[in-house]
Amino acid sequence: MNDRFHDECGVFGIFGHPEAANLVYLGLYALQHRGQEGAGIVSSDGEMLRIEKGLGLVSDIFSEENIAKLKGSAAIGHNRYSTTGTSQLVDNVQPLLINYALGSLAVAHNGNLTNYGAIKDELEAYGSIFHTSVDSELIVHLIAHSKSGSLSTRAVDALQKVEGAYSLLILSEQEMIGIRDPNGFRPLCLGMLDGAYVLSSETCALDLIEAQYIRDIEPGEMVIINKDGIKSYHPFPEARQSCCIFEFVYFARPDSYIFGENVNFIRKMMGKRLAREHPVEADLVVPVPDSGVPAALGYAEESGICFDMGLIRNHYVGRTFIEPKANIRHFGVKVKLNPVRRLLEGKRVILVDDSIVRGTTSRKLVKMVRKAGAKEVHMRISSPPTTHPCFYGIDTPTRQELIASSHTVEEIRRYTTADSLGYLSLEGLLSVIPDSMNKFCTACFNGDYPIAFPEDRMSQLGLFEK
Amino acid sequence: MNDRFHDECGVFGIFGHPEAANLVYLGLYALQHRGQEGAGIVSSDGEMLRIEKGLGLVSDIFSEENIAKLKGSAAIGHNRYSTTGTSQLVDNVQPLLINYALGSLAVAHNGNLTNYGAIKDELEAYGSIFHTSVDSELIVHLIAHSKSGSLSTRAVDALQKVEGAYSLLILSEQEMIGIRDPNGFRPLCLGMLDGAYVLSSETCALDLIEAQYIRDIEPGEMVIINKDGIKSYHPFPEARQSCCIFEFVYFARPDSYIFGENVNFIRKMMGKRLAREHPVEADLVVPVPDSGVPAALGYAEESGICFDMGLIRNHYVGRTFIEPKANIRHFGVKVKLNPVRRLLEGKRVILVDDSIVRGTTSRKLVKMVRKAGAKEVHMRISSPPTTHPCFYGIDTPTRQELIASSHTVEEIRRYTTADSLGYLSLEGLLSVIPDSMNKFCTACFNGDYPIAFPEDRMSQLGLFEK
Amino acid sequence: MNDRFHDECGVFGIFGHPEAANLVYLGLYALQHRGQEGAGIVSSDGEMLRIEKGLGLVSDIFSEENIAKLKGSAAIGHNRYSTTGTSQLVDNVQPLLINYALGSLAVAHNGNLTNYGAIKDELEAYGSIFHTSVDSELIVHLIAHSKSGSLSTRAVDALQKVEGAYSLLILSEQEMIGIRDPNGFRPLCLGMLDGAYVLSSETCALDLIEAQYIRDIEPGEMVIINKDGIKSYHPFPEARQSCCIFEFVYFARPDSYIFGENVNFIRKMMGKRLAREHPVEADLVVPVPDSGVPAALGYAEESGICFDMGLIRNHYVGRTFIEPKANIRHFGVKVKLNPVRRLLEGKRVILVDDSIVRGTTSRKLVKMVRKAGAKEVHMRISSPPTTHPCFYGIDTPTRQELIASSHTVEEIRRYTTADSLGYLSLEGLLSVIPDSMNKFCTACFNGDYPIAFPEDRMSQLGLFEK
Amino acid sequence: MNDRFHDECGVFGIFGHPEAANLVYLGLYALQHRGQEGAGIVSSDGEMLRIEKGLGLVSDIFSEENIAKLKGSAAIGHNRYSTTGTSQLVDNVQPLLINYALGSLAVAHNGNLTNYGAIKDELEAYGSIFHTSVDSELIVHLIAHSKSGSLSTRAVDALQKVEGAYSLLILSEQEMIGIRDPNGFRPLCLGMLDGAYVLSSETCALDLIEAQYIRDIEPGEMVIINKDGIKSYHPFPEARQSCCIFEFVYFARPDSYIFGENVNFIRKMMGKRLAREHPVEADLVVPVPDSGVPAALGYAEESGICFDMGLIRNHYVGRTFIEPKANIRHFGVKVKLNPVRRLLEGKRVILVDDSIVRGTTSRKLVKMVRKAGAKEVHMRISSPPTTHPCFYGIDTPTRQELIASSHTVEEIRRYTTADSLGYLSLEGLLSVIPDSMNKFCTACFNGDYPIAFPEDRMSQLGLFEK
Repeated sequence: MNDRFHDECGVFGIFGHPEAANLVYLGLYALQHRGQEGAGIVSSDGEMLRIEKGLGLVSDIFSEENIAKLKGSAAIGHNRYSTTGTSQLVDNVQPLLINYALGSLAVAHNGNLTNYGAIKDELEAYGSIFHTSVDSELIVHLIAHSKSGSLSTRAVDALQKVEGAYSLLILSEQEMIGIRDPNGFRPLCLGMLDGAYVLSSETCALDLIEAQYIRDIEPGEMVIINKDGIKSYHPFPEARQSCCIFEFVYFARPDSYIFGENVNFIRKMMGKRLAREHPVEADLVVPVPDSGVPAALGYAEESGICFDMGLIRNHYVGRTFIEPKANIRHFGVKVKLNPVRRLLEGKRVILVDDSIVRGTTSRKLVKMVRKAGAKEVHMRISSPPTTHPCFYGIDTPTRQELIASSHTVEEIRRYTTADSLGYLSLEGLLSVIPDSMNKFCTACFNGDYPIAFPEDRMSQLGLFEK
Repeated sequence: MNDRFHDECGVFGIFGHPEAANLVYLGLYALQHRGQEGAGIVSSDGEMLRIEKGLGLVSDIFSEENIAKLKGSAAIGHNRYSTTGTSQLVDNVQPLLINYALGSLAVAHNGNLTNYGAIKDELEAYGSIFHTSVDSELIVHLIAHSKSGSLSTRAVDALQKVEGAYSLLILSEQEMIGIRDPNGFRPLCLGMLDGAYVLSSETCALDLIEAQYIRDIEPGEMVIINKDGIKSYHPFPEARQSCCIFEFVYFARPDSYIFGENVNFIRKMMGKRLAREHPVEADLVVPVPDSGVPAALGYAEESGICFDMGLIRNHYVGRTFIEPKANIRHFGVKVKLNPVRRLLEGKRVILVDDSIVRGTTSRKLVKMVRKAGAKEVHMRISSPPTTHPCFYGIDTPTRQELIASSHTVEEIRRYTTADSLGYLSLEGLLSVIPDSMNKFCTACFNGDYPIAFPEDRMSQLGLFEK
Repeated sequence: MNDRFHDECGVFGIFGHPEAANLVYLGLYALQHRGQEGAGIVSSDGEMLRIEKGLGLVSDIFSEENIAKLKGSAAIGHNRYSTTGTSQLVDNVQPLLINYALGSLAVAHNGNLTNYGAIKDELEAYGSIFHTSVDSELIVHLIAHSKSGSLSTRAVDALQKVEGAYSLLILSEQEMIGIRDPNGFRPLCLGMLDGAYVLSSETCALDLIEAQYIRDIEPGEMVIINKDGIKSYHPFPEARQSCCIFEFVYFARPDSYIFGENVNFIRKMMGKRLAREHPVEADLVVPVPDSGVPAALGYAEESGICFDMGLIRNHYVGRTFIEPKANIRHFGVKVKLNPVRRLLEGKRVILVDDSIVRGTTSRKLVKMVRKAGAKEVHMRISSPPTTHPCFYGIDTPTRQELIASSHTVEEIRRYTTADSLGYLSLEGLLSVIPDSMNKFCTACFNGDYPIAFPEDRMSQLGLFEK
Repeated sequence: MNDRFHDECGVFGIFGHPEAANLVYLGLYALQHRGQEGAGIVSSDGEMLRIEKGLGLVSDIFSEENIAKLKGSAAIGHNRYSTTGTSQLVDNVQPLLINYALGSLAVAHNGNLTNYGAIKDELEAYGSIFHTSVDSELIVHLIAHSKSGSLSTRAVDALQKVEGAYSLLILSEQEMIGIRDPNGFRPLCLGMLDGAYVLSSETCALDLIEAQYIRDIEPGEMVIINKDGIKSYHPFPEARQSCCIFEFVYFARPDSYIFGENVNFIRKMMGKRLAREHPVEADLVVPVPDSGVPAALGYAEESGICFDMGLIRNHYVGRTFIEPKANIRHFGVKVKLNPVRRLLEGKRVILVDDSIVRGTTSRKLVKMVRKAGAKEVHMRISSPPTTHPCFYGIDTPTRQELIASSHTVEEIRRYTTADSLGYLSLEGLLSVIPDSMNKFCTACFNGDYPIAFPEDRMSQLGLFEK
């Protein structure tokens, strides 16, 4: 079930609330789906920054004791996702907290910087010492190197040098800064609680703390929040807006509003559209839980075919499942999902999932459902084929590993052993999102990358192949 | 969300398989919903028993290293649930492993012994020393005290002295014994994998390891499994059969078959029957996830009213959520569930849950749904009012805390602030279970306890009140 | 350097002091040399007993937090030493705390019960379940089985059934009992602090808490301490007094008084006597630190030969030294002791140690000193050859492993490569202890065991060999 | 007993041995007395550096598992001592390991850089980010900033900018560099084992691994060790030689040779000289163990007065002793040392210690010895009064806290309550060290600092006071 795209990170901050660290803890809790490898919180009491962080889930890392140490009325936090080899290093958990010429600062970053390697080399030649293997460290070095007089101007200096995706929170002793990159890849919204400003990757975190949603931070916008209130700036040249459409497809929590719409609602619309694009005679619509549920409900509603939970998810599947040794059966998706034979037996089943990455999971699911007695298994995917890797903050396999990059839909169907396979068209996907023209990054579906990549890196990534 | 009845424990064992401990680990994984406080595995290599156990989830307790220590081709395991004060003592985690006159033995017990106190006093007067505060220790003491010559006859001696509920696995160096009490309160089934016999609380654990389901262990049956195969005995006097009906209502996993039927199927039938018993004009059927989903689907199907996931569950809610301090809002169910305003706004909503215990959670949910914009909130419960505590292995509050023990349905409705409230009737519940007459314990709904309780204890428990 | 006899355990208790657990912690600290494998404290607040225990050193096991949990004005503690395979099981750490018919009790035991196996078998046949592999558990079972009406009479019942060595503390909710076996193998003394009675293995623990030494508990004496004060009983038949002479040779701390004399003083006298028994022309007397220091000082004083610390001990040698792999030199005593070439070079050296067990360490030391430049190395041992194992609470190798059980002094000298070797005679040893006739157990030197052993066990232990 | 000067750190490295990490582990073990707060090892396999480090003792930090991860035939290690507030941060444990333009490098540093603050400010203004609060990080930043082409030339560049004391090991993928500052404050010696070069703070670590001592690294010398052998350079301007005389007085292990002589030998000579400078009629010479032992032996030998261990040290005193609450007696030195009344009673005692820092410990010791029955207590100190703090790698209190900075010997005697007090004269101290003229730093005794300090810092440190 690792056979999915994965989001990289969620951020949450609040300025001017006596329970700042507690509320950031809750915010990270609500954003846990955006990263489960580690989490951290940095607070400011106006004079100094304090940090607590660790590997694992928010609920494992934080205790009453360590939250109590995070004194002060401002705090930012970060949930980390990563598949890189050094993911298990606590040094790589954000926020990054440093001391520099102007004092202290902490940074929490959701996104990915595409020119990390080049700038890092330059800084190292200059004598800078990097202490982590996360691209976000670039930002703190560039801020430290800037000769500007204030943190915010240094941050602008720094971000003018980087390319890529960033929804960014910066905390100093005196202020909290929120910045969304000019393309607006990743979401970031503004809320308010008891007069304190809140910044969050998704609105579901505002809901939990009962903060009021105010508005999204705009692409290219920088907000500076301090004791005098909030100020908004647009310090970067304008760029083509390109919000990540996969947030709607899979990443964001269904109860969140992002980019102006509710995620669950959009997903259900995808399912309806999918039913119109790829109808099939069948007895039962079954979602791949939990992400396939809204689209499956939409498909069922539109098609009039009965919906049921034919696959049951084990909610206790943790990160550390021990695969038994080779000489007993191979597990994988079985650990997470079990079919309900009583529902599936003798039925023509439509299996609805949000995407196919390598195809291996889909193949196991189709076989599992068929083994449980289904007469026919029709696979329906509520997004277009994913043909290209992402460089803006999503963890995707290389192009070669994406089954749709080198196989036709019919070939994929044969591989999964489904009786039929239908993907939602890109046109169909865009049609259910209001005001979607020219607003979204769809590179993972069509290779139309909003930020050009150096040619040698492209070739190395296999983007010119085939 | 602790406002539910809770199951006490799951058991799983296998005899005659080279991967015994690995497979028990997987079995416990699949039975994790039956107990999350701790788990243990004891294995036998024919000469000695080895144990590994701990507090927490199966995936946290076991690692490749400690499973590898559990040598041998036979093993039994146990998932523990408990709300008693000493739940955090690893001594109380089962299986209990002891040395006694005949060698070593380990016991894994799902159920509750109603005459624990009396027999414990007797044994202590005799000189026995108890090392845990779990009733299951009674069984090992009684086996140790029996003068019979074999483990199985000692086990029969011992169990003839105890009253209550027990689905029990016993492992010695040479054999595995499975026993279900004469009333058959808790489930226990028999399966087979690669020629090895498997015993499990539920079939979902057989599915995960791809074992074949053979049959349920009968009430009062004892099976002895050793290198010569399996033998079945009925050593106890016959008793009124009284399987726990709440396994169908809430405890068992929907994909399991227990007492001869699929759980998900029965729950959906409950929802259908509920729709016929308590119809209402509305726009949307919304389940309280995850346990309310099958009944809500049934209700929606029967009523023709649209189904949707109007409450989104945070899947990362752990056991250790830290409630922030008093001066920010009280959390509780909000941490676990968030309403989807986009779906609920302006709608007349039917909220389907499996049961109401204290009523506090239902009240919060109704208010949450209404605050998210619902015009009306109609509460529908897929089981009868729970008026009496359980003494056969379910963790229930005292009678006084059960809202239905002292309030009418209308009073409960007013407390929850719902616009209407409908419970499935006991007749209705029994009608959807095949062959259900005289077979189930329904004490929690009507106080009809299959095993009489000493009078003073009854009064102390408030069973004669009102 | 494991090549020594090792003491088994120290005990310490106090009754009637508001800082009871804190003071027991300090007492165990001072008695740490008697056992480093684990430690525990049980306290009583008059109503219930509480326990904290763990593996490792006292300073690692106890913290302000867990000591604070040990409420009440009475407490007993135990330092554990053991070389048995299960030494690393925290279950085996004392005090043992149980619930039984009369309430709760805790036991801390220094010594060894010689009929453990036989009585354990009997109790198990009876139905008792043992939870540890320490002989001290026998005592709690026998107390639980006694039908007497009070704890103290039950304790007498119990101890009348056991044979061997025990300096024992028992704590119940209401009283603390101290008992020394009729032979008086192990030391136990009584002190007083701020009106509270203290029981301790050695006086050095009284010194640390500034308690006043009152007297030794007599062989066969039982003292019962409760809110009414202290009462003394002699409930056991009189036996031949046989205090462990090795406490003087090696075990006890030099600053302690035991069996009526100061340990350091006796050791120095041994050295003087040794100088008279085994004089040799030499330039330097060098102790094997730290245990050989007092005897070496005595030897130097008597002989007029210069004393110096020619071997330096690394004080940070812990229990967990990792021996590097086979292909680099073998370590062992080198890790603990390093010779000072500047002192030893060209000298005729007298090396003074307290005993020789297997001889391997002595051999390494002689070679080490010679390699550091010594012209001659004369080994002098401040006790007689150790020819027999101990069964009364000392961890000794089997008879076969004791080099002196099967080799003459000249053979041992050749093995150690020393130029000469002299042991203190048993007569000489006894002559320096005041009032020593008929008072001490000297079995390890001459096989004169005060408590007869069943014949088969003797033969199995090799006591009849050669 | 914290009332001493404390050494800051030991270093150990080896190049070209298949057991490199294992041997560094042993080396750190032997150098444990130079720092007990933490330790680390970095190894190189020719291609990459690996690190393992932690807080606590060497034997607690390292296990077979983590040593096994330190692959390669070169390794350096470090024992850390520190009293600063952030001592408990594992980030501050050395070696420091960084990536920079030329690859990776690790640094292990014994000493103290006097211009740390000024250069750090400069580097931060430049954009450098410091990640620890140890002065040694300065060196890695300066190496990273150097534009020279090789590690060794960069190291020279870097060290030309710093002032103070440094015995330094640097490890890269390909070579090990050892450097001693031009003043030669801290020791550093060269050894050889099986053809591999070894660098160590003291010779006792060479002894443990059975390496051969070759020579001391000279003040201002840099040795570069790689597969081609060893090369020696003197890249720095010559400076006044000023080895730390306190290494002889207290820090170094008695079995080590440093600055060309054996430590134990020198200490004994100090005791002899002390006996000549401050004779007194008495019955017993008693050392404050363990550091006072050699001088006490010298005093006894010279004076002909009997020597004995009148104070017994508890060898299990750890770093984490929990001082019991205020309402029982104050502990302190009692936890570590206990007097032997039997030896002291009625005697005129000469108590020999190596130094007096604040005087509080001496006062407690004098009182303790007198309370144990001594008729007279004469304090003799084997070094001159310590009047000035150290800035070259020794942890000393501020000038105000040094009792000798503001009190006469007679005032100190009165404070300690001794009957007489005699310090070894500086002249006397120097007289027992061969070739000592103009070679040692004696600043802590006479304020003659070899490296000038900026004036404002001096005044802030109270050096101009009184």
